[in-house]
Amino acid sequence: MDLNKLFLNIQKGEISAISEGITLIESNKNSLIKYKNKLLELCLPISGNACRIAVSGIPGVGKSTFINEISKLFIKENKKIAILTIDPSSAKSGGSIMGDKTRMHDISKSEKVFIRPSPSSGHLGGVNIHTKDAIILFEAAGYDIIIVETIGVGQSEFEVKNITDFFILLTITNTGDEIQAIKKGIIEITDLIVINKSDGNNIKKSQILKRNLTNHIISKNKTKIETCSSLKTQNIDVIYNIISNYFKKNIRTKKFSEKRKLQRIIWIEQKIKQQILKDFYKKNEIKKRIRKLSSGIEKNKLNFNNEINEIIKLYKSKNIK
Amino acid sequence: MDLNKLFLNIQKGEISAISEGITLIESNKNSLIKYKNKLLELCLPISGNACRIAVSGIPGVGKSTFINEISKLFIKENKKIAILTIDPSSAKSGGSIMGDKTRMHDISKSEKVFIRPSPSSGHLGGVNIHTKDAIILFEAAGYDIIIVETIGVGQSEFEVKNITDFFILLTITNTGDEIQAIKKGIIEITDLIVINKSDGNNIKKSQILKRNLTNHIISKNKTKIETCSSLKTQNIDVIYNIISNYFKKNIRTKKFSEKRKLQRIIWIEQKIKQQILKDFYKKNEIKKRIRKLSSGIEKNKLNFNNEINEIIKLYKSKNIK
Repeated sequence: MDLNKLFLNIQKGEISAISEGITLIESNKNSLIKYKNKLLELCLPISGNACRIAVSGIPGVGKSTFINEISKLFIKENKKIAILTIDPSSAKSGGSIMGDKTRMHDISKSEKVFIRPSPSSGHLGGVNIHTKDAIILFEAAGYDIIIVETIGVGQSEFEVKNITDFFILLTITNTGDEIQAIKKGIIEITDLIVINKSDGNNIKKSQILKRNLTNHIISKNKTKIETCSSLKTQNIDVIYNIISNYFKKNIRTKKFSEKRKLQRIIWIEQKIKQQILKDFYKKNEIKKRIRKLSSGIEKNKLNFNNEINEIIKLYKSKNIK
Repeated sequence: MDLNKLFLNIQKGEISAISEGITLIESNKNSLIKYKNKLLELCLPISGNACRIAVSGIPGVGKSTFINEISKLFIKENKKIAILTIDPSSAKSGGSIMGDKTRMHDISKSEKVFIRPSPSSGHLGGVNIHTKDAIILFEAAGYDIIIVETIGVGQSEFEVKNITDFFILLTITNTGDEIQAIKKGIIEITDLIVINKSDGNNIKKSQILKRNLTNHIISKNKTKIETCSSLKTQNIDVIYNIISNYFKKNIRTKKFSEKRKLQRIIWIEQKIKQQILKDFYKKNEIKKRIRKLSSGIEKNKLNFNNEINEIIKLYKSKNIK
């Protein structure tokens, strides 16, 4: 595998090279780890310069349509956009059922846009161990804007916060999800709450929700709140300006580069964790002992405490295979 | 710490002993691991006999109220119920903002009910590494029914499926979350879909949703679909009968005990993973090397590939401190 050539083509922004790079990065094959890490080593020094935006919200709030509309405005400004979207794959069947890409119909045809559905099965809603790697690669390929889509009110928001700069929480009226977001501390990490589907009969309700949220939040932190209709393209420009101004104001500051440093540290710590576990589980003798432990536990007996300690000792012994 | 005495009191069903046990199990202190694992070793042989029910759904569908109503019917049958509910704690501030327990007002006073809010901050919506441990403890304490509440459409459903027997997906009209649940493969692991808040103006809409879901699902698998109003206690008895019949039919089968075995194996595999990582990170020399690696990565340079391999080699060397 000629990684230097691949890297050069990624740097040139060649779509086929980027696709190949992403596929490599998302691979879980043991034999590919060294190539994948080598590619990341090459990309890392020229990464970190994109505006990274998280778009989160429970199912049904209209994330895809919103991303479609906001991206159009970035395209107008001649920006290159990478979108890490949620793949509607089934964890059980393993295959795709419906295509979310269709909801981003308008922008998916633009050559300035790269949409990558992340295989979220078996992982947190939209954010997985490869997401940060993919961001590094897209930045090395010269993308200006990176949008990471996540679902659900839960852990994924905190994961995505660690790897992005601007956190947008999408909501709609009548779900009560904003109460849960307040409870779970998600509002505290949110830069902008967008009340979507504010059109037709829903405008008044959206305004009430906006007022209630404003009263609740405003005293506590700097979270902004806006209503919009992604479907009718209403107020999207206002939201675009908020995002755009945030980056204009912050991207060259010391605080921003400090954050990038911290993000890289969190990233390398995850890499270490992955690698130690991979190394541990690939040993045949470890596998054998774990099987034995499992069959004991199956029968509801076994001093598993000691047995686990013994397995760890074995792993650290010199001659293990 | 007199673990044998604690275990005996847990076995007797003493509330204070159960609380103490759960607190021990949820502790992340290195110094307590051996006590916690010892307690689990004692509980394990007499565990596995409860009916384990998962109640999942996005925020706002009324999970707490539903659990409250369904639990009342179990209490009538003289069953002891443990509820592992979602703690509305803020991951950022660490403290509770609002109390979900109030929504389970009716049953929280019953001596047959033990409600344990699981600290979900930093973990998947409601399911964490301690949830399975807590189930084992409650079973050893003689609880007949264990209800595990989770939020969100995402990874948490698949996690909770691994540790429970009967999966209830709660939904309401107008959220579109059922489409997402279909997409993500959640329906495939669902035993019963409950369309909640089917009262007043909402009855007709709920019936339409039920029909649509039935048409979509019925040909594929055995997922049942019911509407109810937890608030008005309507149709809860029908849902209770479905759950109750499921366990009557299955709990003594070979398939059921095979599943319990598999669940124990998944559980012990997670324990091994936790322990190897704990052992790795507690070494001072490892900590030092990771700090050095982090400071290199902070500056965007470093051959991290080699460095991680070196750290793993160091961990396995004989004289590491």
